[in-house]
Amino acid sequence: MPYHYQTDGAAIYAQSFATIRAEADLARFTPDEERVAVRMIHAAGLVGLEAHLRFSLGLVATARAALEAGAPILCDARMVSEGITRARLPAGNAVIATLHEPEVPALAARHKTTRSAAALELWRPWLKGSVVAIGNAPTALFHLLEMLEDATCPRPAAIIGCPVGFVGARESKDALWAAQPAPCLMVEGRLGGSAITVAAVNAIASSAE
Amino acid sequence: MPYHYQTDGAAIYAQSFATIRAEADLARFTPDEERVAVRMIHAAGLVGLEAHLRFSLGLVATARAALEAGAPILCDARMVSEGITRARLPAGNAVIATLHEPEVPALAARHKTTRSAAALELWRPWLKGSVVAIGNAPTALFHLLEMLEDATCPRPAAIIGCPVGFVGARESKDALWAAQPAPCLMVEGRLGGSAITVAAVNAIASSAE
Repeated sequence: MPYHYQTDGAAIYAQSFATIRAEADLARFTPDEERVAVRMIHAAGLVGLEAHLRFSLGLVATARAALEAGAPILCDARMVSEGITRARLPAGNAVIATLHEPEVPALAARHKTTRSAAALELWRPWLKGSVVAIGNAPTALFHLLEMLEDATCPRPAAIIGCPVGFVGARESKDALWAAQPAPCLMVEGRLGGSAITVAAVNAIASSAE
Repeated sequence: MPYHYQTDGAAIYAQSFATIRAEADLARFTPDEERVAVRMIHAAGLVGLEAHLRFSLGLVATARAALEAGAPILCDARMVSEGITRARLPAGNAVIATLHEPEVPALAARHKTTRSAAALELWRPWLKGSVVAIGNAPTALFHLLEMLEDATCPRPAAIIGCPVGFVGARESKDALWAAQPAPCLMVEGRLGGSAITVAAVNAIASSAE
């Protein structure tokens, strides 16, 4: 049986984004935020996600300016770092995921936490002015908030905090929103994950659709 | 402010899976399917996903037997291949993603399709008896179905077909279910994606929770 389907990548994107804009309730977003929201809905395949998005004032402009200035992107999982489209990054930005570094198991034992959380200790040299992208582990987001309670810890420029799941995801994102140690973007509740997080980074990195 | 949260990875999994089992409607699944469904819901952070899952009869046992016999896992995206937990694989199985191979752009031009679809042409040497994991591109799933219309094309042992999105995702999965060139697992409609696909592979690969 012959299959009839769209095989032009640009047309697939255009049709997808048009469908999302026809169906989703995007009225409350600024134009910058709207483009990010559309890509996040696209990655999730889920109209309705928009109701759960929260942007700090100026998040998109702040994060984009940081990337244009060469900020590294710090990721909590390889699924996040691998998904970021390098061609969209404005300054050949470094994309860093430390979870699989050999010292992480010992760090996790020392800090009595998960490997995902302990891996953030290795972010310290890159943290200042960075864009953080947490798309998997609630414990990583909690650990970041703990690191940033120390006033001497370098500050990221922006935090995309979208861990997913049933234990700690909602709580860690509520804590991020309450503390706001930097402008942030989050998905309320259980929803989140690497694909949604990657979509946010890719949307912020370039205004090209 | 001190944060109080679960930092024990095994406890996080156990609590998550218990919550899912308390909330989701899993009665229609076999025990094998239920474990896979729970992990897919976990990755999506979305109770209700279970209503959209379809398993061919014997899919889990067939795919696990293939992996135990050393089958490679063929992935349409690096976000899929990177997410698969190597420690869960029963035979040190190869995990292959060909999207970024240098010949893919020329293949896409020759086949007049997306790079995601054309990359499957490079799967042919590994396709026989493999486990296919498509978690991103509807065009990749359509291209696989087209390849398998040729009776001389080697058959995979099982197909996990969970592309996501607004153009072709629903249609490609409906086509997979209609054709069933091998036992398959799919998510109906727009939902899908790399995290859900990875969760299915990780659940099938090992009965350990």
